[in-house]
Amino acid sequence: MTGFTDALASRLRADQLLTAGDALAEVDLDRYLHDDAEWAPFATPAAVVLAESLDDVVHAVSTAAEHGVAVVPRGAGSGLSGGANAIAGCLVLSLERMTAVTEIDAEERIAVAEAGVINDDLRAAVAEHGLWYPPDPASSAISTIGGNAATNAGGICCVKYGVTRDSVIGLTAVLADGSVARLGRRTAKFSTGYDLVNLLVGSEGTLGVIVDVTVKLRPLAGREERAIVGWFPTLADAGRAVARVSADGIIPAALELIDRTCLAAVDAWQGLGLPTGVEAMLLAKVDEPGAAGEALADRVAAAFEAEGGEKVERGADPDEVERLFRARRLAYPALERLGPVLTEDVCVPRSAVPEMLARIQSIAAAHDVVIANIAHAGDGNLHPLIIAPEGDDAAKDRAETAFTAIVDACLDLGGTVTGEHGVGLLKLPGAGRELGPVVLGMHAAIKAALDPQGILNPGKAFPGAVTAAPAG
Amino acid sequence: MTGFTDALASRLRADQLLTAGDALAEVDLDRYLHDDAEWAPFATPAAVVLAESLDDVVHAVSTAAEHGVAVVPRGAGSGLSGGANAIAGCLVLSLERMTAVTEIDAEERIAVAEAGVINDDLRAAVAEHGLWYPPDPASSAISTIGGNAATNAGGICCVKYGVTRDSVIGLTAVLADGSVARLGRRTAKFSTGYDLVNLLVGSEGTLGVIVDVTVKLRPLAGREERAIVGWFPTLADAGRAVARVSADGIIPAALELIDRTCLAAVDAWQGLGLPTGVEAMLLAKVDEPGAAGEALADRVAAAFEAEGGEKVERGADPDEVERLFRARRLAYPALERLGPVLTEDVCVPRSAVPEMLARIQSIAAAHDVVIANIAHAGDGNLHPLIIAPEGDDAAKDRAETAFTAIVDACLDLGGTVTGEHGVGLLKLPGAGRELGPVVLGMHAAIKAALDPQGILNPGKAFPGAVTAAPAG
Repeated sequence: MTGFTDALASRLRADQLLTAGDALAEVDLDRYLHDDAEWAPFATPAAVVLAESLDDVVHAVSTAAEHGVAVVPRGAGSGLSGGANAIAGCLVLSLERMTAVTEIDAEERIAVAEAGVINDDLRAAVAEHGLWYPPDPASSAISTIGGNAATNAGGICCVKYGVTRDSVIGLTAVLADGSVARLGRRTAKFSTGYDLVNLLVGSEGTLGVIVDVTVKLRPLAGREERAIVGWFPTLADAGRAVARVSADGIIPAALELIDRTCLAAVDAWQGLGLPTGVEAMLLAKVDEPGAAGEALADRVAAAFEAEGGEKVERGADPDEVERLFRARRLAYPALERLGPVLTEDVCVPRSAVPEMLARIQSIAAAHDVVIANIAHAGDGNLHPLIIAPEGDDAAKDRAETAFTAIVDACLDLGGTVTGEHGVGLLKLPGAGRELGPVVLGMHAAIKAALDPQGILNPGKAFPGAVTAAPAG
Repeated sequence: MTGFTDALASRLRADQLLTAGDALAEVDLDRYLHDDAEWAPFATPAAVVLAESLDDVVHAVSTAAEHGVAVVPRGAGSGLSGGANAIAGCLVLSLERMTAVTEIDAEERIAVAEAGVINDDLRAAVAEHGLWYPPDPASSAISTIGGNAATNAGGICCVKYGVTRDSVIGLTAVLADGSVARLGRRTAKFSTGYDLVNLLVGSEGTLGVIVDVTVKLRPLAGREERAIVGWFPTLADAGRAVARVSADGIIPAALELIDRTCLAAVDAWQGLGLPTGVEAMLLAKVDEPGAAGEALADRVAAAFEAEGGEKVERGADPDEVERLFRARRLAYPALERLGPVLTEDVCVPRSAVPEMLARIQSIAAAHDVVIANIAHAGDGNLHPLIIAPEGDDAAKDRAETAFTAIVDACLDLGGTVTGEHGVGLLKLPGAGRELGPVVLGMHAAIKAALDPQGILNPGKAFPGAVTAAPAG
């Protein structure tokens, strides 16, 4: 124990504190070294605190501030950008034990959840009150609401219902000096002062530690899900079908693309009976009830067929809809079985989806790497998955070069380097190229204003080495 | 001319600059002294610049920064909180001449508009491309997109389609040192760095001057408007009907309340043939097509009737819908004919609407003032309109006391002091009570970080006299 860990221990139970020097603790401590991002650097923390209350978080951050120790907040560690990766000698602050849904107000259609509540658990809890929490990252079974908010997580339904940011209306955050900020509101509208809720959402723990969130909910009733699936002979055909759905003014509740490599991996693992003689599947969902839903599903199917979609089928049976979307959710774990997966998260204008898919194919060929594609295609949010065999360092180097080439192509097409995973560590160079010196200067100025010691998740979310002077 | 105005003049045409010492200019200059807020203080500026380009804005702000002169940015001056009121010796920077819609991309469903574009003009321009810009403040015929963004303006359709914030995905701002920040994106999703778009939206010109905005649009097709109107014997009945619509899980496209005083004023002015023997009218709109729309309109009508609504009628004819909503839009100017109107803008949880309306009635009685009510009731966003006869100073004092009592009642019910008008000057004390020292400290720290000289609209948007230390 050191002075720092002694101070931490003074107000925590023994089972809430793991320290680096403790042989017994180190086995558990290994779980807190990094998130799910491949190849993002991490180091050994001085300690891990398993907070169980707001007071615990205040104590941990205050103690770190007194000792000048960096704090890396963390939910489930399911992030894909390295945002939760430990820094040498830091305090990893886990919120995973704060799992209470403290309030569900059916009349106001809001809920308050502690940061460690699992996304699916919140959805299930509010469903009992006839309410629906839309944001559904693919990690929904394991990721936490706090992590979702800190990274502004997306998901499959975003194309119609928005990302996490669009559901969070208030939050409690512990600031860098240990003070508690209660931000936002419980009302439908709010224009009092600066929008600090949205500033904290997506800030990846660099401005404050999110301890709970207040989310707005939608009525569960009134939705009727219809799925539309189409198989495409080329990725370009599928990309054009996506652009056509958008150009036709259709807002589906989901519009996902899964390419041949992903389909084959899912089929080999789970035997879902997916056809393999095609290059891509598009999977859409509409959720309007009755005749309006039927009509919209027809229009989606027509757009698919107009761009070369084959065997375009419709499913309105909930089990059938679930079966089709299961293939989508399993794509990532299925590919991980083949080797380390470097996950991209670029987002381009919808009309640029065909061109971006073509460039990804060229990049794969040029760098001799396997790139599979899953995409929230209706949002233009693509996840090229770069697969390198375990232990093949040359392949890893080629994968990293391809990763950068994809980022460059995305920026060239007017896109953004991260649609929903956040910058973390992996997207720092791309974020620097995208934002430019003036906007990076604003980031640095705000970070310095709210965290003058620089202890909150330093080095994440935006590149800190700004060459231009801060704005103002 | 002074050194400051000489420096301004060096790169502007004569008709772009009004100066306080110039007898000819002063007639025009009077138009730029204040916005539409009653009784908010204002003073004489040193100069008014009528910017016509980004370069003009950069020149004006840079020159002000060099001379340490405060800058008060301004759109149409239709604000209701004093946010655009001139400060003694300041530069008023009008964006009203920047009226170009510079881009409409029908495929991506986005538009880029300069700050001075009138809200209705943007709506009309995108409608020609089959697109719809939802945010519709009552001032839509006169207010500008830049002002809408700076104040995070609301409107009638917010209950379903959100406020200005929910449509703005990017913007260009000139920062306090004259540098140009291009914030946000053109893509559907975006998680690169901090959400500086939402930080600028609603910041009332205190962090940067918004020069253009990029907005996302919706398809114009596919909506079928149906209006539902009901007349209520008491305000409390109407309030309970609002709460019931929400509790029933209905999300209407509009749900407005207009009380007897407003109805009488509109009828006396415009002769719309509105009944006067009732205390309140509720006016709802649903916009789902076909049978779903019919069913939803039935449910709204049933909720009205269940809480005492009389003569509940339905209108699906566009002219009839327009006629009903015309009464709503005319309520504010109709009341202004009766004397100065001090406009409240509190927002309470929807379930608290009946109680808040009751408290407003009590406050009117206790302070012997006339308070009329219009409300975006479906959002819990109430606009008690406090009317004082011109020149009656005692009545004005009572009106201001009632204003504060309403703010206190709103906070007591878990509400926020401004739902859509912004803090400006009128809500500074209320905002201070609502936000508290930690959150005000964050405001002060961010303001100081982005505007260290404090030249951008100083004294607006949040109370600056913070007693607690800034966060961090």
